[in-house]
Amino acid sequence: MLRSCGARLRTACGPPGGALLPRLFSSEEVSLKDQALPKPSWSKEIRLLFDQFMKKCEDGSWERLPSYRCPALNIQNLETSFTSKPSHSLIKGAAVRKEDLLDRARLFTRSFEDGLGFEYVMFYNGHEKRIVCLFQGGLYLQGPPGFLHGGAISTMIDATLGMNALIVGGLIMTGNLNINFRRPIPLCSVAVIDSRLDKVEGRKYYLSCAIRSADEKTLHTEGTGLFIKLDPGKSLV
Amino acid sequence: MLRSCGARLRTACGPPGGALLPRLFSSEEVSLKDQALPKPSWSKEIRLLFDQFMKKCEDGSWERLPSYRCPALNIQNLETSFTSKPSHSLIKGAAVRKEDLLDRARLFTRSFEDGLGFEYVMFYNGHEKRIVCLFQGGLYLQGPPGFLHGGAISTMIDATLGMNALIVGGLIMTGNLNINFRRPIPLCSVAVIDSRLDKVEGRKYYLSCAIRSADEKTLHTEGTGLFIKLDPGKSLV
Repeated sequence: MLRSCGARLRTACGPPGGALLPRLFSSEEVSLKDQALPKPSWSKEIRLLFDQFMKKCEDGSWERLPSYRCPALNIQNLETSFTSKPSHSLIKGAAVRKEDLLDRARLFTRSFEDGLGFEYVMFYNGHEKRIVCLFQGGLYLQGPPGFLHGGAISTMIDATLGMNALIVGGLIMTGNLNINFRRPIPLCSVAVIDSRLDKVEGRKYYLSCAIRSADEKTLHTEGTGLFIKLDPGKSLV
Repeated sequence: MLRSCGARLRTACGPPGGALLPRLFSSEEVSLKDQALPKPSWSKEIRLLFDQFMKKCEDGSWERLPSYRCPALNIQNLETSFTSKPSHSLIKGAAVRKEDLLDRARLFTRSFEDGLGFEYVMFYNGHEKRIVCLFQGGLYLQGPPGFLHGGAISTMIDATLGMNALIVGGLIMTGNLNINFRRPIPLCSVAVIDSRLDKVEGRKYYLSCAIRSADEKTLHTEGTGLFIKLDPGKSLV
């Protein structure tokens, strides 16, 4: 879907791409705790890969992308910028104030407690227009017993391809995801999502990815994504 | 991905399809609190649709499918039945006992507190081989500000098509999802996922769905899914 949250935050922190993006949140409301850094819940396996990629960052060919929980919605900006119409008959069956929404909404991929949901860090290679995402899916992402839910895998594909498209193209929205599930991913194992930009046709950005086990021996999933560059003046709904 | 959790539980509760499925959990470990019933967090909109579908159930043409958090993994059964290899270097960077895994894993679509994540109920029409899923996506499923994450939508498509394929075909695994995102879904609004079985070719089950707003005026998303019937004796990994 539409990418802007991470992008707005990235504007505040320096990485490329943010300059094209609208300011959606007031700085007071944005928690700037970077979630894409090692935590106690990270396994040795993801730490090892993290260290390897941080080493690749030293010559500037790769860069780590910070990531945040993106807690707050500035509903006023939302409605003026995107003419969105979030439902207000939300919590406990009763209407709630916009400020309550603003306080309570969370970015889906950062909505779990540490270690239980999506743990990940993305690294971007500008020359290759490529993102590698190191992903450890926690115990709350279960589909079949002992394995990640297909929806959790789809979510990380959408997040990774979407971030790649956003960096290259600015404000975008997911148009299509096409995902082939080859081998299930064990719960709490580490998977590596390797995504790249395949082509650009006008406002259409085509990307693809493969998900492999940390030891690269197992091809778990392959996916493609089509992302559409948005006209910020145009309504989404 | 592989479907079995809901199916095992449905075996205990009566609806069709479960008889084909292996017993994965001991009854002591399975919480039987049905999550697919109205809760305080449900909006008036989803309650209204729920009541309409419950009325359709009276003549037996439709039936409501119960749904559970499916909390426990019987790792011993897992490893013998599916030769799965869940990672044990999981929490806080250290190895944990199988029993800890068993206690802590949650079905992804039921892993949030009431009202914050995936609220849904599915109704099955056996004659039409069709599932209608009423879905209210909560504040922790945010992608773009004010809208559901594409991964959350993909998750509900996988869950709905997968359940439909499971009822028709028994133990299955997602092979492919192909999703076209037409219009974003506002956070906490109610969407209706209408899925049907299109064809069966050997072990391959082809399904499709459309997601519309509760008032049916907006087509949000369209998707197809290919599900593969499993040989329980065959390793998944």
